[in-house]
Amino acid sequence: MEPQDKKLALRAINYGLYVLTATDGTDYGAGGVNWLTQASFEPPLIVAAVKADSGSAAIIAKTGSFAVNVLADDQLDIGKAFFRSTTVEGNTLNGQEFEPSPETGNPLLLATPYWFEARVTDTVARGDHTVFVAEVVGAGVRNPEAVPLLLRSTGMNYGG
Amino acid sequence: MEPQDKKLALRAINYGLYVLTATDGTDYGAGGVNWLTQASFEPPLIVAAVKADSGSAAIIAKTGSFAVNVLADDQLDIGKAFFRSTTVEGNTLNGQEFEPSPETGNPLLLATPYWFEARVTDTVARGDHTVFVAEVVGAGVRNPEAVPLLLRSTGMNYGG
Repeated sequence: MEPQDKKLALRAINYGLYVLTATDGTDYGAGGVNWLTQASFEPPLIVAAVKADSGSAAIIAKTGSFAVNVLADDQLDIGKAFFRSTTVEGNTLNGQEFEPSPETGNPLLLATPYWFEARVTDTVARGDHTVFVAEVVGAGVRNPEAVPLLLRSTGMNYGG
Repeated sequence: MEPQDKKLALRAINYGLYVLTATDGTDYGAGGVNWLTQASFEPPLIVAAVKADSGSAAIIAKTGSFAVNVLADDQLDIGKAFFRSTTVEGNTLNGQEFEPSPETGNPLLLATPYWFEARVTDTVARGDHTVFVAEVVGAGVRNPEAVPLLLRSTGMNYGG
C-alpha cells in the first residue's frame, strides 16, 4: 500500500465538523472532531473516535458519556475555537456560551443548531484515537433550517 | 428525547456514499453504505456499521475483511444499483465490473475513483447494524480529481 494512495483514499470519506464535549463536573473537555457516524437505528447508536491522549477521552472514560454539537455551514469560526486547549470562564467554553445537557450534563453550545448526547456502551482502544460506541439518550434542534458544515468545504481535512 | 429531534439531529451528521463489498470466494455481498469513518491514523483504522442481518455482515464475520469503494459526485446511479440484492454475473457485480482487491480479495468496482480494503480487528454487535473496526491494509486511487459524493446532496438520507 502506497502511503500517498492511503492518504488520498481515506481523505475521500466525507465528514462534517462537530464540537464534542465532556465534563465530570470539575474538568471539561471540548474539541473539534469529524470522525463520527451513526451506527444503529435501534437502539440509536453513534460511534466517535476521540484522540486517545486528549482530556476529552479521559473524561469520557470516567463518566461514560459525551455530547456532540453540530456546526452549521457558517460556524467554522466556532469550530476553530475548539482546535485549541479547553478553557472554561463562567458559562463559556472557549468563548462559547453553554448549558448542561439534560440527561448526561455534558456541555451544549447554545450557538449550534443541532446537538445530541450519548452514553458509552462499548470502547475500542486500539489506535491513536479511542472508538466510543454510545447510545443517544438526548437530542435537540435549535435551528432546523441550518445546513451542517461539510469539512471538505473548509479546505481542511483530518484523515488519511 | 423527542423522536423528531433525535431524527433531525442525527441526520445533521454529514456522510458520503460508498459501496461496501465482501466475498468469501463463493458468496458476494455488496451494498450502499454511509455509516463509515476513519478511527485512527496509526494503525490506520476505519469503522463501518453494516446492517446486522445483511449478507455482507455475514460474509465479513466469516472472512474478517471488506472493501470500500468511494463514489464520485456523478456516480449516484452506481450507488443506487447497490441498494438492491447482490447479483454476480461474470466479472460484474450488480452490473459493475470488478476485480479482487490485492490484499484481501474483496471486490473493487473499476468505475469508482477511490477504494480501500481492511481487516477487521474488533466487532461490536449491539444494535441493528454491526460495528466493524478494521485496519486498512490496501488502498488505491483511480481518479484523484474526482470529488466524493455527499449523501446530503442527493436528497436521500440514512440516519436519524
